[in-house]
Amino acid sequence: MFFASDNGSGVLPQVMAALSAANTGYARSYGSDPLSDEVRRLIRQQFEAPDAAVYLVATGTAANALSLAILTPPWGAVFCHRNSHLEEDECGAPGFYTGGAKLVLVEGDHAKITPATLATALRQTPSGSVHASQIAALSLTNITENGTVYRPEEVKALTGMAQAAGLACHMDGARFANALVSAGCTPAEMTWRAGIDVLSLGGTKNGCMGVEAVVIFDPARAWEFELRRKRAGHLFSKHRYLSAQMAAYLTDGLWLSAAQKANAMAARLSAGFAALPGAQLVHPTEANAVFAAWPRKGHRKALAAGASYSLWPDSQPLDGPEDDLLTARLVCSWCTTEADVDQMLAVISG
Amino acid sequence: MFFASDNGSGVLPQVMAALSAANTGYARSYGSDPLSDEVRRLIRQQFEAPDAAVYLVATGTAANALSLAILTPPWGAVFCHRNSHLEEDECGAPGFYTGGAKLVLVEGDHAKITPATLATALRQTPSGSVHASQIAALSLTNITENGTVYRPEEVKALTGMAQAAGLACHMDGARFANALVSAGCTPAEMTWRAGIDVLSLGGTKNGCMGVEAVVIFDPARAWEFELRRKRAGHLFSKHRYLSAQMAAYLTDGLWLSAAQKANAMAARLSAGFAALPGAQLVHPTEANAVFAAWPRKGHRKALAAGASYSLWPDSQPLDGPEDDLLTARLVCSWCTTEADVDQMLAVISG
Amino acid sequence: MFFASDNGSGVLPQVMAALSAANTGYARSYGSDPLSDEVRRLIRQQFEAPDAAVYLVATGTAANALSLAILTPPWGAVFCHRNSHLEEDECGAPGFYTGGAKLVLVEGDHAKITPATLATALRQTPSGSVHASQIAALSLTNITENGTVYRPEEVKALTGMAQAAGLACHMDGARFANALVSAGCTPAEMTWRAGIDVLSLGGTKNGCMGVEAVVIFDPARAWEFELRRKRAGHLFSKHRYLSAQMAAYLTDGLWLSAAQKANAMAARLSAGFAALPGAQLVHPTEANAVFAAWPRKGHRKALAAGASYSLWPDSQPLDGPEDDLLTARLVCSWCTTEADVDQMLAVISG
Amino acid sequence: MFFASDNGSGVLPQVMAALSAANTGYARSYGSDPLSDEVRRLIRQQFEAPDAAVYLVATGTAANALSLAILTPPWGAVFCHRNSHLEEDECGAPGFYTGGAKLVLVEGDHAKITPATLATALRQTPSGSVHASQIAALSLTNITENGTVYRPEEVKALTGMAQAAGLACHMDGARFANALVSAGCTPAEMTWRAGIDVLSLGGTKNGCMGVEAVVIFDPARAWEFELRRKRAGHLFSKHRYLSAQMAAYLTDGLWLSAAQKANAMAARLSAGFAALPGAQLVHPTEANAVFAAWPRKGHRKALAAGASYSLWPDSQPLDGPEDDLLTARLVCSWCTTEADVDQMLAVISG
Repeated sequence: MFFASDNGSGVLPQVMAALSAANTGYARSYGSDPLSDEVRRLIRQQFEAPDAAVYLVATGTAANALSLAILTPPWGAVFCHRNSHLEEDECGAPGFYTGGAKLVLVEGDHAKITPATLATALRQTPSGSVHASQIAALSLTNITENGTVYRPEEVKALTGMAQAAGLACHMDGARFANALVSAGCTPAEMTWRAGIDVLSLGGTKNGCMGVEAVVIFDPARAWEFELRRKRAGHLFSKHRYLSAQMAAYLTDGLWLSAAQKANAMAARLSAGFAALPGAQLVHPTEANAVFAAWPRKGHRKALAAGASYSLWPDSQPLDGPEDDLLTARLVCSWCTTEADVDQMLAVISG
Repeated sequence: MFFASDNGSGVLPQVMAALSAANTGYARSYGSDPLSDEVRRLIRQQFEAPDAAVYLVATGTAANALSLAILTPPWGAVFCHRNSHLEEDECGAPGFYTGGAKLVLVEGDHAKITPATLATALRQTPSGSVHASQIAALSLTNITENGTVYRPEEVKALTGMAQAAGLACHMDGARFANALVSAGCTPAEMTWRAGIDVLSLGGTKNGCMGVEAVVIFDPARAWEFELRRKRAGHLFSKHRYLSAQMAAYLTDGLWLSAAQKANAMAARLSAGFAALPGAQLVHPTEANAVFAAWPRKGHRKALAAGASYSLWPDSQPLDGPEDDLLTARLVCSWCTTEADVDQMLAVISG
Repeated sequence: MFFASDNGSGVLPQVMAALSAANTGYARSYGSDPLSDEVRRLIRQQFEAPDAAVYLVATGTAANALSLAILTPPWGAVFCHRNSHLEEDECGAPGFYTGGAKLVLVEGDHAKITPATLATALRQTPSGSVHASQIAALSLTNITENGTVYRPEEVKALTGMAQAAGLACHMDGARFANALVSAGCTPAEMTWRAGIDVLSLGGTKNGCMGVEAVVIFDPARAWEFELRRKRAGHLFSKHRYLSAQMAAYLTDGLWLSAAQKANAMAARLSAGFAALPGAQLVHPTEANAVFAAWPRKGHRKALAAGASYSLWPDSQPLDGPEDDLLTARLVCSWCTTEADVDQMLAVISG
Repeated sequence: MFFASDNGSGVLPQVMAALSAANTGYARSYGSDPLSDEVRRLIRQQFEAPDAAVYLVATGTAANALSLAILTPPWGAVFCHRNSHLEEDECGAPGFYTGGAKLVLVEGDHAKITPATLATALRQTPSGSVHASQIAALSLTNITENGTVYRPEEVKALTGMAQAAGLACHMDGARFANALVSAGCTPAEMTWRAGIDVLSLGGTKNGCMGVEAVVIFDPARAWEFELRRKRAGHLFSKHRYLSAQMAAYLTDGLWLSAAQKANAMAARLSAGFAALPGAQLVHPTEANAVFAAWPRKGHRKALAAGASYSLWPDSQPLDGPEDDLLTARLVCSWCTTEADVDQMLAVISG
């Protein structure tokens, strides 16, 4: 009953096998090896973007912060959701990598920016005068921190507004595959065809060991990205082992099938909560994360039975009246089983 | 009829005289001259703070950003009002000077933080986990950007909450003298006795040519401040000319009488608006700035007559229905006259 | 005949096996897993440093730059050799991570700082005045970029001078194990007993996939390190896979035997060059890197035969008189074989 | 007998008069006033550069660091002399303002870079590879820190090499007028016609109160400069008082006559040292600074008589054998008198 995070899950067998297979003889370092060529080929092909620049790093925070750093000057303002990973979970990485740019926090239910909330944020953020930060970029997180999904037409509506205001557009796709299979669209439809300039394409949470790709659809700033990556210590010497993961992940639809599995388990769990007396869903379940509330006594039972998940926020006290609803986040991954889900639901209601 | 800003006014005659008087022979540079000693003595005396470290810079943005830089690490979060100068008018200087720290924007009517809004902001800002920025400082602007004033007991209530949460406390006193005479308290009561650790003490807007003091009540970080100031290019070689201004400003109560004059003119203007049919005050007038709304036709008349002031926000169009209310900011200074005020009111209503 | 770099070699079988073994079920993320506990235990034990703080990152540049960032303020000066990795191979990472600190380049034959060259550099670097950067740290690279080794007593002599000047002491040990087995001393003797405050302990070049430990002997700045690591995107979510590598590396003396193998192959290669008519050694061979010069015609033969190594510097032209000596760097690793070495020598002289 | 620095001298009477004259009524702030227009006109006219962007700041460190920041990315390398102000006297301001760029220190007698030393530095500084900083700019200090002068043809020779390598070219002209009158050329000949892209044009040391102009001959990066200046707190609100200084300085050749006076006094002092038994000149006297060595007993006499100057370096002890030569720097300014010079020489030899 491990639902604490998809990053607590292990590595997909195919990815482990690819790492072993890559461990043969010598290879040129820093991305000049054949496996790294293969990753570039795979991403360009699957995104229908033959000119895209593709770079690998090992963490999502690095992918995001480096991406932003090529999209905003130090005096820029980056629009993102108030609950985005950029704002809440990176210890200020965007400020560090951009040289002090500022995040403008956009509102929106279920961690989604809407055209209305983006319009409000744009209107309230002066720019153009030397006294203000200059508006520079929009970052959308897909899937969001609340497990919801932007569909391509939603992305396009927001990037259209952003582009009209002169902003570059980034997508934080730490769980990009989960969004993709949820929306049922192609990688190109979700990204450059919908106005995205740079994508952080996650691998780690969805079954890799530690690899994320940054896909820069307009390669004009690619060299700057390379220098920033190196300077930040994110250029791997034994680069083939990043590439081996990503190549396996993108081969034979592994990334999609792993995400489908995770999303299906979340749907099963969500349906269970919907049917559970006294419980309620807090955000729509659209991908692999479930946000549900149920009585405190059910939490006590679940935790006593060894369930692992997060109270969300974690400031909710476990001590208190039995029937108060406490909200939790439960994340499924490629290795979540139906038995895990069913046991979780049974324990709570048992 | 110049009400655009107090920084459009000239230099007090006493300050100009002091600059001329200082222009005699040679002086040691970088603050090792007798006039700089005198400034340190005056500030320590008037703030009843014999151990305070005192440094001069030439702009308010420098004073604020350098002050914050010694109060927060790069991964820190600084609480300030959504409409503070730090957030809106410094082109991201806090991000630059702190190495990427983040501003947490606190709500509050009339640009004032209240215990309730600060409590909300503190509660919504997680800290302690390595994934989040670490809460570090509170900055209060006095007078605020809306012309309101924190009284010492209000400052103390907020700094008390801040200190309990482990925050250092800064006051942006670009218009400190205006706040002081409005509140009718001593410099010590408004600052260190009310929990302020570092003060940006403005001179420029209130009749100096270009000088602000940073007063560090606990001098433990004074050397760091000196290095940051130098490294930022804010250590003046011919330092005596900064000191001459500040010494004159602090002598014979000049800073207070200049602020009293400005505040009195704002009170007269405010009373005029209160009595003007169709006009209304938007924020309480507590110091030297008046925020009032009156019909568009009155704005057209005023501007045609050569009045200088700011529409606030400046996005309000001058074209449109005659009777719509447009809001303006009008700032008085030491050189505003009763005739200016009366003419302004007459033109609008004429 | 691969001698281009030890980072072109693969992963030790024991390390690969440990990665597979770690891939079982769920694990807490971000270093809260049992394997990460085991790494901390192993390093504290082997370094006889029960209080040391231990952190893992994936690259040597990250380990170095993060280490420096906790040892120098932004206005600090860090002494390092002119040919150090910090200066030559990190695209300015120290400047980025420290917020703009400066490297003072120290001279010395064979990429080694000596007491005399350090004394010169210290004498020529004013500090204490607000106009100058403030001297802050010394960084020694062991083994050096020229394949030479500081013995513990040499380290101690330099750190003694540094400490007397108030400097903190860092060791860049990207090839620490190679230095250790060359010097025949214990980890403690090479580090904290010799005055080192923070060590970058390399794993990648010596047979890991991508892991380096930062060992902070005085843990006072450990929390700052954690925040800096997270903020830089170097905190791994699936941290167990960093830990599995490092744990295997430090178990049963694997790190030492791998380094011994590499050093032995370099010694064999070096002896071969010493005996080769027309060739000469450019730097003493003390660990796993050989710097040798031989006639251009020999380089042409080697490269035609598929040998992989670096001309050092790489600006030496392959076109030119046949008998000119060109200098090369050849690096051995845990997987270099005697046959590789002998073939290389045979090809050149053949 | 004040020769400690030209920044110990006062403000030229014409500049003080201009400040008083500017202190009339209201003026628009932040550089939108007529005096600021006049400064832009004067500089464009005198530099024969109608398209140049012109900005004022108050200190030389700000002028230099902001100039460099628009000429190099954070991962850039800037070539400057080992004894330049950038390297020795700005507490790391270039690192702060550029976001961590590195200074490559170029050798050269008398603080002058030569084509030979620049060629060496360029050859020893790899670039192009992602592992190295990228060469970005050259900064020449004129007059140099040793009082020597680059003539236009010397500037051109160096900028030609720099441009061929892809570098932008900056001139630190904190004492630009002294260089100009020494070389007997026009401002255009010394700058853009000789390949300079951005000039720090000093006013402070040569008789202003605190003002430096940054002249950007290619205005493409002007807006970036404005944002960086504001963000650094170097945009003055009461800007007319910077402009009044600079306008007076550039009117009726005041800047040139003040520099001629200072240079003439230095020449007189230098001639005196040349004729003084036991004394010797350490660097050629080409502008307003004299570097001379004379016996310790002469220093004791001079200091006892109240002379103010710097031992260079200041680590030379005043205690020691009477006849040892100690080197001093003596700087003349617009207010140095023949009597000062003659008294100084008389005291030493007396």
